Amino acid sequence: MRVTAYAAPAAGEPLAPTTIERREVGPNDVLIAIEYAGICHSDIHTVNGDWGPQPFPVVPGHEIVGTVAEVGADVTKHQVGQRVGVGCMVNSCGECASCLAGDEQYCLQGNVGTYASTDRDGTTTQGGYSTHVVVDADFVLTVPEGIDPAAAAPLLCAGITTYSPLRHWGAGPGKQVAVVGLGGLGHMGVKLAHAMGAEVTVLSQSLKKQEDGLRLGADHYFATSDPETFEQLEGRFDLIVNTVSAPIDVDAYLSLLTIGGTLVNVGAPPEPLPVNAFSLIGGRRSFAGSMIGGIAETQEMLDFCAEHGLGAEVEVISSDRINDAYERVLASDVRYRFVIDASTLA
Amino acid sequence: MRVTAYAAPAAGEPLAPTTIERREVGPNDVLIAIEYAGICHSDIHTVNGDWGPQPFPVVPGHEIVGTVAEVGADVTKHQVGQRVGVGCMVNSCGECASCLAGDEQYCLQGNVGTYASTDRDGTTTQGGYSTHVVVDADFVLTVPEGIDPAAAAPLLCAGITTYSPLRHWGAGPGKQVAVVGLGGLGHMGVKLAHAMGAEVTVLSQSLKKQEDGLRLGADHYFATSDPETFEQLEGRFDLIVNTVSAPIDVDAYLSLLTIGGTLVNVGAPPEPLPVNAFSLIGGRRSFAGSMIGGIAETQEMLDFCAEHGLGAEVEVISSDRINDAYERVLASDVRYRFVIDASTLA
Repeated sequence: MRVTAYAAPAAGEPLAPTTIERREVGPNDVLIAIEYAGICHSDIHTVNGDWGPQPFPVVPGHEIVGTVAEVGADVTKHQVGQRVGVGCMVNSCGECASCLAGDEQYCLQGNVGTYASTDRDGTTTQGGYSTHVVVDADFVLTVPEGIDPAAAAPLLCAGITTYSPLRHWGAGPGKQVAVVGLGGLGHMGVKLAHAMGAEVTVLSQSLKKQEDGLRLGADHYFATSDPETFEQLEGRFDLIVNTVSAPIDVDAYLSLLTIGGTLVNVGAPPEPLPVNAFSLIGGRRSFAGSMIGGIAETQEMLDFCAEHGLGAEVEVISSDRINDAYERVLASDVRYRFVIDASTLA
Repeated sequence: MRVTAYAAPAAGEPLAPTTIERREVGPNDVLIAIEYAGICHSDIHTVNGDWGPQPFPVVPGHEIVGTVAEVGADVTKHQVGQRVGVGCMVNSCGECASCLAGDEQYCLQGNVGTYASTDRDGTTTQGGYSTHVVVDADFVLTVPEGIDPAAAAPLLCAGITTYSPLRHWGAGPGKQVAVVGLGGLGHMGVKLAHAMGAEVTVLSQSLKKQEDGLRLGADHYFATSDPETFEQLEGRFDLIVNTVSAPIDVDAYLSLLTIGGTLVNVGAPPEPLPVNAFSLIGGRRSFAGSMIGGIAETQEMLDFCAEHGLGAEVEVISSDRINDAYERVLASDVRYRFVIDASTLA
């Protein structure tokens, strides 16, 4: 099946319209007619070659929402016409300890990324900047009614990336949670932590987005460029979720944790981060990392968002504006996620 | 009350016999006739000035076992003649969240160290290389019958320092635990993790102490100088307790953890340790720290040791051999703890 898509022909080159082949719908596959695809910073890193060589042409996009157009013979979980989503992975080994525990993202064989990855049948995956995609039913999420489909798309990456560590490290009533950075990930972190009942603080470089942050659910907002912030907030947080990919002063952020608190990175700067062991030992503190979430947990997150009326703050664009949108993401000029209207691709 | 002690007169100078003043036994105090005092590497760091200026003369020693010689009017927990112990701290604020949670070691006002610290009454604390010590009853532990008193002394620091993280991060049946370094701390880590029911692996620079390690309770023993060790043990451990104070390759050790595993430092190298965020993110892993343990937990550890017949492996020395013992600790020539026989001080 030949479908329309937007692809990067080579590293650093502008994306352009093209057609790609999608596989036949197998017994456990779902054919999705894509409605919306979010633009994640990872898409830009990948097509720019920041993360090494890629199997060009690459169709990015791992924040996909659409409706089921066809299902394979063995598929019982999804029906034609249902609204569904696909996130950052489309397959995993299904047999290792991680997969059996529902942590497919940590598959010991490596999960299969939604684009620019080698699927288990040897083909190269292509992402959601496209009209259609065929995905194994086990990796297709149900988007509950009541979430705007454009606002739902970024939940599949930005949502689950922040939801998973918030849940894992117990964000909830009586907990002090800080979110570092108010971008695509951070703004979802604030909404989710607030909905979980935690007291939420945004730690942003400046106070530029303070009004937004408070509107999205933050109780407090501090500028990290102000050294007084670190004095004032010493020992405050049970959990800090760092969504910033630029290197941070880990020891400074560890000093903001309570005894037993955790600083968890969801962004990954390429440079090694120096950590003073005393910063950890002196308060039984942890420096941790977290990567998206498992399939069951992603469904749980979508259901949680529906229940609490949460979605991403999005700016819907037509496909001819993808390259402009990339420029604006790089300039941090987006509040808070671009989402491509896939009907403009056809 | 004037008592005999061994003190360092100045940074880097040999220890020498002297007399020091102990405070009057107050209403909540216990006067302890010291039987044994362990020699901890921290004692050497402190008197050598490695950790900054100290209030010389300094009487080191925070692994103290003795018998109760006198109790204050309000003391009900301890009776004259009982065998008791004192570890790394002798006071704390008693009012902060940490103290109220039984984590006096993380007192937000700072706990009062057993020596070279300023007590809450403004006096300077002096440690266990002495015939007697006066300690607040709340910081005096009961040494259960059945533990050899000399072998019990190192439990008060080396024992609790490894027991607390093993318990906190769930060492037990079905868990793979590695202990990095087989010194004073490491040998207790092995004994305790084994007694808790975990499968225990020693990661030591060489195989020199392999026979000892296996005898102490390790199931496996690997040399970290062999690069194959890191390939062979990839993704193996739920918990790694690093007892080595020299800098380690954190990313290499993080690669040995299971998904969700924790590397916890109890030794503190002064240099910052570089950590690659991908090492954490790729497997929801944590790099953490832990410092001794609370008073209730220290008592729990002593009771656990009595129940399981555990004590430290010690070489008992007379006080005139303290300076030689320091040389041998620095040369790693001790299996596994020197303990001073306090009767040789009098």
